[in-house]
Amino acid sequence: MRIGVLGTGNVGQTIGGKLVQVGHEVKLGSRTAENAKADTWTKQAGERASHGTFADAAAFGEIVFNCTAGTVSLEALRAAGQDNLSGKVLIDVANPLDFSRGMPPTLSICNTESLAELIQFEFTKARVVKALNTVNAQVMVNPAIVPGEHDIFLCGNDAGAKTQVATILRDWFGWRTVVDLGDITAARGMEMYLPLWLRLMGSFKSPHFNVHVAHV
Amino acid sequence: MRIGVLGTGNVGQTIGGKLVQVGHEVKLGSRTAENAKADTWTKQAGERASHGTFADAAAFGEIVFNCTAGTVSLEALRAAGQDNLSGKVLIDVANPLDFSRGMPPTLSICNTESLAELIQFEFTKARVVKALNTVNAQVMVNPAIVPGEHDIFLCGNDAGAKTQVATILRDWFGWRTVVDLGDITAARGMEMYLPLWLRLMGSFKSPHFNVHVAHV
Repeated sequence: MRIGVLGTGNVGQTIGGKLVQVGHEVKLGSRTAENAKADTWTKQAGERASHGTFADAAAFGEIVFNCTAGTVSLEALRAAGQDNLSGKVLIDVANPLDFSRGMPPTLSICNTESLAELIQFEFTKARVVKALNTVNAQVMVNPAIVPGEHDIFLCGNDAGAKTQVATILRDWFGWRTVVDLGDITAARGMEMYLPLWLRLMGSFKSPHFNVHVAHV
Repeated sequence: MRIGVLGTGNVGQTIGGKLVQVGHEVKLGSRTAENAKADTWTKQAGERASHGTFADAAAFGEIVFNCTAGTVSLEALRAAGQDNLSGKVLIDVANPLDFSRGMPPTLSICNTESLAELIQFEFTKARVVKALNTVNAQVMVNPAIVPGEHDIFLCGNDAGAKTQVATILRDWFGWRTVVDLGDITAARGMEMYLPLWLRLMGSFKSPHFNVHVAHV
């Protein structure tokens, strides 16, 4: 499959690398076609890897991952273009973390809104699914590095898109338990979990952890 | 031990009942000394149970639980009185959930603040520990009703108070894994977890669930 990955940071490179590894063609997108990080990644990831602008990556992908920093995601998606996202599954991995006040970051969007909702509201023809934002990048694509049972969440308004993303999470990334939290407004909960995530990372002194929901 | 429990709702009654059951004297506090709910509870809970005003309950307790609705907690604690809380461990169980916009509730305090921080800031001589707000009342006092391993979080500025609360959670309530998230600012994460909790309750169709943190 052809996949567009927006964002050339740790998350974009890690997800892009995994997707190439499991057999897909991946184009990493950034603000400019010439991006040193994306270029290095492309050379390392092999012949199914390429890079270009946000618009190039979105046009290339049959599905698209938003792995940009949450505070600039809307801007990046506008650069990607409505038409290039139309009808496509758009997996929103971003967290609207604002580091401008120092550590720990605050959320630039929260409580009565979420980044995923703003994306779905503006990009009406994209089929937005929030997923993977609740774990570290290495855990996203290799959940087995965290021992024991643990779960990944998703939400969105398009049932078909959620089914497709759940299959991607299971078959390509190796997740065993995918919990559907409902419509896109559940992204508020998924994004507002980040402040707890940051404290858990402090307590366990590692980003390689995740939650399992024990239930009756 | 003598324990004050502020709040006569489901959480206060459940925690108060458990404390009586494990051998303690409990005074439930509410706005007025004559409160029908507290009266019924007192009769059912047995001879070690009593009730009174917020001030009566706080004065009575060697330790105090805040089980009031989060949106009125500061007001309830002001009624309880600075002096009645001075030097005492104050376990803040409340969530600042605002139901005034309908369902789902939003948080009346979040992101750059938390209810527990506001309480500690105003009640400087109380030793505030945030705990138990991340699970349903029945799970708080009987974690075994949720099968498998799952964890309870706490945070606060007073190490001795946290040790005492961890012991209470383990020995009186039956928790096996108590995770210390650090100082009182970690309450932001614990309180901002609620929107995710509410969606998980929707997905699992039961409030009897909880998270376990799997980690390396």
